[in-house]
Amino acid sequence: MLRSLDLPVPLDTRAGTVRLRRASSADLDGLMTLLSDDPISASRGDVASAEDAPEYRRALEEILDDAGNDLLVAESAEGRLVGTMQLTRIPGMARRGSTRLLVEAVRVRSDLRSAGIGGAMMRWVTEVAAPELGSSLVQLTSDAARADAHRFYERLGFAASHVGFKYRVPGA
Amino acid sequence: MLRSLDLPVPLDTRAGTVRLRRASSADLDGLMTLLSDDPISASRGDVASAEDAPEYRRALEEILDDAGNDLLVAESAEGRLVGTMQLTRIPGMARRGSTRLLVEAVRVRSDLRSAGIGGAMMRWVTEVAAPELGSSLVQLTSDAARADAHRFYERLGFAASHVGFKYRVPGA
Repeated sequence: MLRSLDLPVPLDTRAGTVRLRRASSADLDGLMTLLSDDPISASRGDVASAEDAPEYRRALEEILDDAGNDLLVAESAEGRLVGTMQLTRIPGMARRGSTRLLVEAVRVRSDLRSAGIGGAMMRWVTEVAAPELGSSLVQLTSDAARADAHRFYERLGFAASHVGFKYRVPGA
Repeated sequence: MLRSLDLPVPLDTRAGTVRLRRASSADLDGLMTLLSDDPISASRGDVASAEDAPEYRRALEEILDDAGNDLLVAESAEGRLVGTMQLTRIPGMARRGSTRLLVEAVRVRSDLRSAGIGGAMMRWVTEVAAPELGSSLVQLTSDAARADAHRFYERLGFAASHVGFKYRVPGA
């Protein structure tokens, strides 16, 4: 949990006001469904299989127990999860000791993807969360295949200045 | 400090054996010099100015105090710092609850950049640190201008599969 974040907060979207709050262990099923609701994630094995629930549960607890991480969910007025993202605050030496805020695993429910939910979540990150956490830089990587996502981040003021490299540990 | 990492370790390089160990507060000057010894970093304000020392010192202490982060240095037999990198262990939901290992701020002294020091550091990350930390994915971003670095990471088995986006928080 990133303790200094002032949550929950309401976010205005074209699908109505959604409530951005910390995830809890009760969100496990909804989070697994959100992750699987994306072809690239599904291709990596996130298919919301019941037998994977223990691994997701352990991961969720570890994120929520970690002082440098937080997992957030956006919830509709009807109480359905419509989005999620993970934040990691990273102290660093570069850029004269700047603290960064890393955003991972941004997902919005597929049938609501043009309603401004992701934009409202990311604007909250850049305008509220990053200043609250003392971060001067917000960073994320997006799969090279997600062209729509790239335009989305550029409209929000992100610069595609870096190449994101991944190494899959054999046998892990 | 990432407590489960077994450090220091010797690394064989063409500049002799270097010792990879945790940074300490005594390394502040050497770390500032290493960061400034790179034109892209220098262009972002990392110029080893004495007046910036308090900010770097605060950042160094925060990294070393953080259970999810570690700052490492490679030291020559003569006791000079020849390389550095930061590791961040990130628990996550995606990829069925995988833990990632993020590598940031990889730097090797400019006059030793073809001696295999960076390669030895990164192979230790992928072959030793990631398994010790239970991470199935190692990730990093590299400035799009660093073409040599991109070839270096691809030779080490990293895939340039993502685009790295950065957002500079106004006024921060």
